[in-house]
Amino acid sequence: MAAPLPVSPLARPMPALAPVAGVRFGAAAAGIRYTGRTDLVMAEFAPGTTVAGVFTRSKCPGAPVDWCRAALPQGVARALVVNAGNANVFTGRAGFEATQANAADAARLVGCAASQVFLASTGVIGEILPHQKITDALPGLYATLSDNGWADAARGIMTTDTFPKGAVRETTIGGTPVRIQGIAKGSGMVAPDMATMLCFVATDAALPAPVLQALLSAGTNKSFNRTTVDSDTSTSDMVLLFATGLAGNPPIAAETDPALADFAEALDSLLLELALLVVRDGEGATKLMRIQVTGATSDESAHRVALAVANSPLVKTAIAGEDANWGRVVMAVGKSGEPANRDTLSIAMGGVWIARNGTVVTGYDETPVVAHMKGQEIDIDIDLGLGNGASTAWSCDLTHGYIDINGSYRS
Amino acid sequence: MAAPLPVSPLARPMPALAPVAGVRFGAAAAGIRYTGRTDLVMAEFAPGTTVAGVFTRSKCPGAPVDWCRAALPQGVARALVVNAGNANVFTGRAGFEATQANAADAARLVGCAASQVFLASTGVIGEILPHQKITDALPGLYATLSDNGWADAARGIMTTDTFPKGAVRETTIGGTPVRIQGIAKGSGMVAPDMATMLCFVATDAALPAPVLQALLSAGTNKSFNRTTVDSDTSTSDMVLLFATGLAGNPPIAAETDPALADFAEALDSLLLELALLVVRDGEGATKLMRIQVTGATSDESAHRVALAVANSPLVKTAIAGEDANWGRVVMAVGKSGEPANRDTLSIAMGGVWIARNGTVVTGYDETPVVAHMKGQEIDIDIDLGLGNGASTAWSCDLTHGYIDINGSYRS
Repeated sequence: MAAPLPVSPLARPMPALAPVAGVRFGAAAAGIRYTGRTDLVMAEFAPGTTVAGVFTRSKCPGAPVDWCRAALPQGVARALVVNAGNANVFTGRAGFEATQANAADAARLVGCAASQVFLASTGVIGEILPHQKITDALPGLYATLSDNGWADAARGIMTTDTFPKGAVRETTIGGTPVRIQGIAKGSGMVAPDMATMLCFVATDAALPAPVLQALLSAGTNKSFNRTTVDSDTSTSDMVLLFATGLAGNPPIAAETDPALADFAEALDSLLLELALLVVRDGEGATKLMRIQVTGATSDESAHRVALAVANSPLVKTAIAGEDANWGRVVMAVGKSGEPANRDTLSIAMGGVWIARNGTVVTGYDETPVVAHMKGQEIDIDIDLGLGNGASTAWSCDLTHGYIDINGSYRS
Repeated sequence: MAAPLPVSPLARPMPALAPVAGVRFGAAAAGIRYTGRTDLVMAEFAPGTTVAGVFTRSKCPGAPVDWCRAALPQGVARALVVNAGNANVFTGRAGFEATQANAADAARLVGCAASQVFLASTGVIGEILPHQKITDALPGLYATLSDNGWADAARGIMTTDTFPKGAVRETTIGGTPVRIQGIAKGSGMVAPDMATMLCFVATDAALPAPVLQALLSAGTNKSFNRTTVDSDTSTSDMVLLFATGLAGNPPIAAETDPALADFAEALDSLLLELALLVVRDGEGATKLMRIQVTGATSDESAHRVALAVANSPLVKTAIAGEDANWGRVVMAVGKSGEPANRDTLSIAMGGVWIARNGTVVTGYDETPVVAHMKGQEIDIDIDLGLGNGASTAWSCDLTHGYIDINGSYRS
């Protein structure tokens, strides 16, 4: 294996991950691909835990994605098993059998139906998952599950990640304090929809599965589906949200219940924090880009324009070079295919409007923009001047580091 | 300015570019941006020359693209003026005025209507084109136009190109020999539709403008629209095809005339040769990738799958690393959004089928594939196993060279 990657300069320290009532996590070294590190993560959830999920839109999803999609309609989860190092993708019948075997393993330990076990795998594509290693490791791992296993879990699911990722929110539902806590992994093959990553969030809130699903879908649309590292969508992406119900909040029947407003806001902001942590760990990233589009004919159109800019290799290399090359932003807007009018288009970087209504601003002084480009967080504003549609996307720069990481043999 | 780039390892020598009856080319140094090299190209066409054009689909096209689009419906061309170093894009009213002035300059010299002058600009976006420099240089340049100016023209339109690009075909229409000859430039911001580049082709065939347009549109769809370097579409792309009529072939009324079959085939192959020369000069390219998709539900679907693979940074970096990482091909097929079924998907590299029907081929021996990956021309075959749709796309690898070229200040 290659030497460990240096930690991203955009890394953020892990927050303290406290227990979430009804959730026990742990990690073990099963030797699936890596040596000298944990690569197998398990969680057990209290009886009655509801679950929601959002999955990759890839037409070639991995076997664990198929498994979770099939299990989700029941809306009940008792366990989660995740391995790193092998994605169990494009593995045919063997891949399906691996999911069956490992779900059955976890179900036996927890004492639940196999369909209440959720599975995720991340790593190399096309190699048969050595599921017996997981079978062998699970009993020992199960014995170590703990309220305090969150940080270990965040580390155990990493692949090319250079730092573990977690986020916490404390909020209330109908006056009852509830906690939302999540971990994520991902750093390449990251694009909507979904950003190539795994994200597991749990809360002690009591929420029916359909409500949970509505909240999660809305939250991922505002977070993971607005971030991109390299436009490449993984076969294995998923976000799972588990609600143990042990907080004892008043019953909630619908996602439109006003008592949910704070919770929804906290969940949205937690998901965005985790999504941005993934971008911050984008392979080779040295700068975080925020692209804000206004004046589009619709929000959806603004979203597509923002992503065209966020994914443009020429914009991303310019940012890497600390070059306020707004001409490449014009190019990327133009290629998006969305309604745009050159003569109403305005572009700002670092809050300074460089071009207004189709031409460079008279007396444009590059000095403050040049200073902004030297920072770690780069803001690009694009006003299409056509309507009221708005959206924001996040990306990172494209550097030699990306080539180093992905151009070496079977990274 | 940065030091000159090393010539692409994929470069091809320029063929001998002989005269095309009715076409006189030349190049001059107008000092628009570069020093010590030609940056202004002019051509004069014999009276009666017909013209066809295909332009960028960018929503933010440059002023010269607007100019040519407006002139094209007349179908008549007497002159072409091209500058390198400044794209005259996002230059507002000043950009329009520059096109007016330079078209009038050329019209005066040639003795034609300004609307019979075609214009193209390539280079930096957002800077006002110093059109007076072109006005000043054109009379001297016009005096030097020559039947043998093609190679000079191919050099004069280069920007980040590392080698000049030309191609020739000799064919017949109704027994009359005709010549087709073209030059092209482009190496980055290259993607459909159109590949970011300029391409000028002339023939001495006598063909009405509508017939010429039909042939050109069909030919670019099979060539430039199937090539990509970095998925970024320029604001300035164009392919122009001029037909002077001096070959004296029998009259042709429609593109469906069987007498045109050889000409159409020759034109298609010339356009593909020029398009591939652009990919061979892709910024930082060290390998040319050919992605052939079969078994799709339609040709159009196959085209989109091929482009998803051709544009995937993870596939492109794997090729750069000489890694037969077919898992990334699976990923790219999956993200294309086109109909695909994991369990009928097959992938070959270098003609060796690695995965068949959703899983790795039993006893797959990587040895011949590893040898293929070390070559300069990489073949990837993808059979979706669903229908009869097929398409081919070409791309290049993604290397440190791309970052070097595009991550430096205002390259």
